[in-house]
Order: sequence, then C-alpha cells, then structure tokens
Amino acid sequence: MTGFTQPVAQDVIDAMARLKDVAVDTPIVRSDRLDAMTGARVFIKLENLQRTGAFKFRGAYNCLSRLDRTTCPDGVVAYSTGNHGQAISTVGRMLGIPTTVVMPSNAPANKIKKARENGARIVLYDRERQSREAVAAELAKEGQYAVVPPGDHHHVIAGQGTVAYEALQSLSARLGRDAVDMIVVPCGGGGLSAGTILAVEAAGAKAQVWASEPADFDDTRRSLASGQRETNPAGRVSICDALLAPVPAELPFSINGERLSGVLTADDATVMETMRFLFDECRVVVEPGGAVGLAGVIAQARSADADRLKGKTILVVASGGNVDPQLFATAILGEASSASA
Amino acid sequence: MTGFTQPVAQDVIDAMARLKDVAVDTPIVRSDRLDAMTGARVFIKLENLQRTGAFKFRGAYNCLSRLDRTTCPDGVVAYSTGNHGQAISTVGRMLGIPTTVVMPSNAPANKIKKARENGARIVLYDRERQSREAVAAELAKEGQYAVVPPGDHHHVIAGQGTVAYEALQSLSARLGRDAVDMIVVPCGGGGLSAGTILAVEAAGAKAQVWASEPADFDDTRRSLASGQRETNPAGRVSICDALLAPVPAELPFSINGERLSGVLTADDATVMETMRFLFDECRVVVEPGGAVGLAGVIAQARSADADRLKGKTILVVASGGNVDPQLFATAILGEASSASA
Repeated sequence: MTGFTQPVAQDVIDAMARLKDVAVDTPIVRSDRLDAMTGARVFIKLENLQRTGAFKFRGAYNCLSRLDRTTCPDGVVAYSTGNHGQAISTVGRMLGIPTTVVMPSNAPANKIKKARENGARIVLYDRERQSREAVAAELAKEGQYAVVPPGDHHHVIAGQGTVAYEALQSLSARLGRDAVDMIVVPCGGGGLSAGTILAVEAAGAKAQVWASEPADFDDTRRSLASGQRETNPAGRVSICDALLAPVPAELPFSINGERLSGVLTADDATVMETMRFLFDECRVVVEPGGAVGLAGVIAQARSADADRLKGKTILVVASGGNVDPQLFATAILGEASSASA
Repeated sequence: MTGFTQPVAQDVIDAMARLKDVAVDTPIVRSDRLDAMTGARVFIKLENLQRTGAFKFRGAYNCLSRLDRTTCPDGVVAYSTGNHGQAISTVGRMLGIPTTVVMPSNAPANKIKKARENGARIVLYDRERQSREAVAAELAKEGQYAVVPPGDHHHVIAGQGTVAYEALQSLSARLGRDAVDMIVVPCGGGGLSAGTILAVEAAGAKAQVWASEPADFDDTRRSLASGQRETNPAGRVSICDALLAPVPAELPFSINGERLSGVLTADDATVMETMRFLFDECRVVVEPGGAVGLAGVIAQARSADADRLKGKTILVVASGGNVDPQLFATAILGEASSASA
C-alpha cells in the first residue's frame, strides 16, 4: 500500500458530481425469464451503453479531469487490456491531454483500432513474456508522464463506484430504500468491486457486494480465502479478455479483502450462454468480461447454493460491450458453438 | 375510412398516462462517429429495449387495456409479421385475455416461439398465397373475438405515438424546447409514423416527421407522391421482415398522407451496415426493420441531398431488436457478408 491513497465513500459522491452530464446515466433492465431462471429479482445495469462501451470511462474521467498538468507535461500513460486504454484515450482527447496506451499484442483488434482513432499512441507488448508495468515504467522515463493504472488509483476506484451509486439511487426511487440485497460486479483487478463497496457505504445502503470472476481466473476468490493476494497460474486462457489481470490489484484488494461478501465464478461456456441470453432477451451486446457478473449469478442459480439467491433483489453490472464480431457471432449462434468454447 | 375512428393528439397524452410504469421509458443514445458521418446531431431512441423488444408493446397495451371484454368473450385475434403478435400475446398474458396470433409461415422462428411461450394460439399462413386479413376474419367467425390490427386502430396508433412523445419530453429537458428538427421512424403499414405525427402535435413541438422504408417496399413514399395508397409489387423480398406490409394501412395513411414531411429509403445492404454500426458503436441489437430509420438517414447523408441533414437535430427511432441470430451474425461480420446481402 506504499504510495497509495485509499479512497473513501465521499470520493464516490464527489465523482458523481464530476461525472454529471459527462458520463451516460446508463439504463437498468430486467427480464421475467431471468427472474424465473434465478428465483430472484434481477436488475441489470447496462454499462455497455456507457461512453467508450464500458464503465472504465467513469474512472478515467474522474482521474484525468483532476490531473495536475504541471506534474505531467507529456500527458498520461495507461497500460490496459483494452477498455481502460480506450477510456483513457477518449478522455485524453476530450480534455486535450496526450495519451500513450500500452496494450497486449493479442488484445481484440477493434479495441486497438479505437484507441488509435482517439489519437492515442499505442505501444504493444507480449502478455506472456513481458510485464506491462515494466513497459509502462520504461515509457515514463522518456518523458514526464503520469501513469494511470486501471485499478491502483483512488480517483479511478471512486469513479468506478459511481456505477453502483447511480444504480442504487435509481432503484431506491423505484423500489424503496434498502430494496437491493446484493450487487454483483465482474472482477479482474478489483477496481469496480472496490468502488462498489464504497458506493454502498456512500448511499447508506445495506446491499452485500459480490465479485464475479472467470472460473480459471479466480485470483480474488482465492485471495479472499487466504487473506493475501494470490496469483493466477500462468498459461491459462479465457474469452474474458477484460478480466485477465494476473493478481488482484493492491489498492482495490485493500478494500475488497476486508469488505467483499464473496466471489461467484463462471466458466467460459456459461459466459457465452449469458452473452446469448443478453442478445436474445435484452437485445444488447455485452462482451465476455462484461457478462461474467450475470454468468456468475446464473451459475449460482444452477448450483447447490441456489437458495442463496431465492427471493433476493440483485443488481448485476453488465460492465462492457466491446467484443470482436466473430466471437459475438459464435456466442449468439448457440448450442454447438458455445459447447465447444 | 369506414368504421375507423381517427386518433387525435390528446389520445397520445392519454396513452402516455396509461403506459406509465408499464412500458419501459427507453433510453436515448448518441455517437460522435454518427454525428460526423451525417453532419447532424443524431439521437437514437432504443425501442429495441422496450418490453417484447419492440415499440409494438405500446400500441398493444394501450389497445387491450381499454378493451370492453363483454364484446369479445373469446379474446383477441391479431395478424402480424411478428412484433405486433408478440406484443399482443404478451399483453394478453399480462391482462388475462386469450390471444390468437396469425403469422406468416416464414416469420423468424424466434418470433413464433416467443408468442407461443406467452400462451398465444398461433395460426400460420402462407404470405405469398393467402391474405392475412382473410385468415383473421375466418378465425373471428369461430368465436367472439376482437381483431386488433397492427395499424388500423386508433388506440394502437395513439400507443405508438408515445415513443416520440416520451423522447420529445426527454430531449426538451436536455436540449431545450423545439431543439428537435426531424423525427425519422421506420415505416411498414405506417402506424408508428402516424402516432409520431400526433405526438409532435401533442408535445407542441415543431419537428418534421419523416418515415423511412426499405427501398423495395416504398409504398408509403409512392403513396405520398400520388396522393393515394399504392401497393408494393408482389414477389419482392427484403431482410426487413417487420416492414413488409403490401400497402399503407388505411387509418395511418389518413394521417401520414396529409402530414408526413417525406420518406427516406434504404436498401438491404445499407440496413445490414447500419445493424453492424449499432452493434459496434452503440452495443445494441437492432433488427433490420428496426434499423431502417437510421439506415435511411445514413443513405441520405451519402446522397446528393445530404445538405438537408446538415446542422439538424434528428431523433431516430430504432424500433425493434428481434432478429434471428444467423442474420445478425451475418450483419456484424461485415464487408463480404453485407455486400452479398
């Protein structure tokens, strides 16, 4: 935790004010079929309809709009599996801040292309052989940049917290105070989970916060169990490209480790099936990592622990919608394809 | 016009009250890329996120909730290319009214399946060889049903008008009164266009209302030019299955013929491209007929008349999202596929 400032609940409220009329107040949808499948009352917050197609815009804007430009005359460096990089490049363009984005060379082509279109300089690296932090640090030596990590920054975490804060405001107005029992969010490094925990406190709500992870990238689940940050074994693959951080980020885990209620998981086949469900039932495009929250709920509903969901009111965040067309086509074409995924 | 009651602006306001807390107040999205493509400021109303995945829910609910059940003890018969039938069957289930839906045998399989799941009796007919009105009339002889047509009913038209009324309320609050210059809606039989015209009057707005049609099903465009209801030549095909009415419906045309500002058209390739754009840029699933509004705007922006759009604020309705996965996959996989469509 050296050098980090831990964000607090008030930071989420401040971020809400800063994001007003800048971020999209994204819609919340529901489905009779989903409620029947889960035995719960499920609300889905569509952050795939956020600017840049992912909640990452919120953290990026909250962070970059507070930047002291005299400390980083050459702009901002971000390392990102895609959505954070796209958010940083978009916000950089909006605020006139030069951006450099470090991305894995196997990131979806559409994510690389869009960051480039925003005027960002793109530096690719090999995810299997290089550390992205080392690449970013090397770049930072070339000039006076600020490095904006996707999770380890209090302004980023506070910005991500506005997803749940906004949703809780909306659902309180519709359903009454304390109507929401659980909030489930996709989890890679853990920034969204940590922000959500602060949002619940800021809203004075009682909801439990659960993370949901790809089954083979369950570092936060194992870290919660052991009490320390556990890494994912090398060499694993998943379609959830947005959630492949090798280890929980330090600052988010300082919050998640104490206050997360638990972690759900979903395998890739369930994620593909969930993408198809969201296509068919809600007519929206959600990327694999963005669908992991709902996929975790669906997996839970089929498990021996299904009773945990019964009668609950659950807010699930669909966190992003930037997916390669080929993968999305495979997901929506169904049975045969998703079984082989 | 024998037997028809022409709806008026106040009917749209009454329908708004009836649909409150029943229909989804669907979100409105925009895109920098789209504004750059068109030279206009374009807002897209996402009726694909409406209940049943299409605006048709509004007209169906407004109509069925006002039904005098003593006049139709055996329920309701609807003939529909799909979305109207799905809306009627869903509303019938909500209100406890038995429904029979007459559908063309080549309607998308998912639309037939969903109407059946809602408990509707489905009667299929051959679109090329049979008249759907005749099939429905024959059925009505079996029992005491009310026939609810997709356009020729004043409560249906008034319900469809709530799409634009709701959007004008929202955009007035954001952009100021009279900010919207044009409203563009997909057009099959013309019910949505007619309702939109009444909505503009009800809102005291100044926006022009334009319909948008598939290029090979431009019956409303030709009818506007000739001053009488023109039919589409038999044997034509289009991917826009929701918009293949053979002729403008009588009651809507009594409004559209007098008060539509004009009709845009788009060919199937442009519609496929627009579906891909909405997938990639807005992360939503829009069916071909639902995308024709925006496709018409995009086609216009590429035409010799592109200047007509410059600097305008345009509200486009994306009217539905019920699309077969295979067709959607073809659309989003792009160049080669859409060129061959």
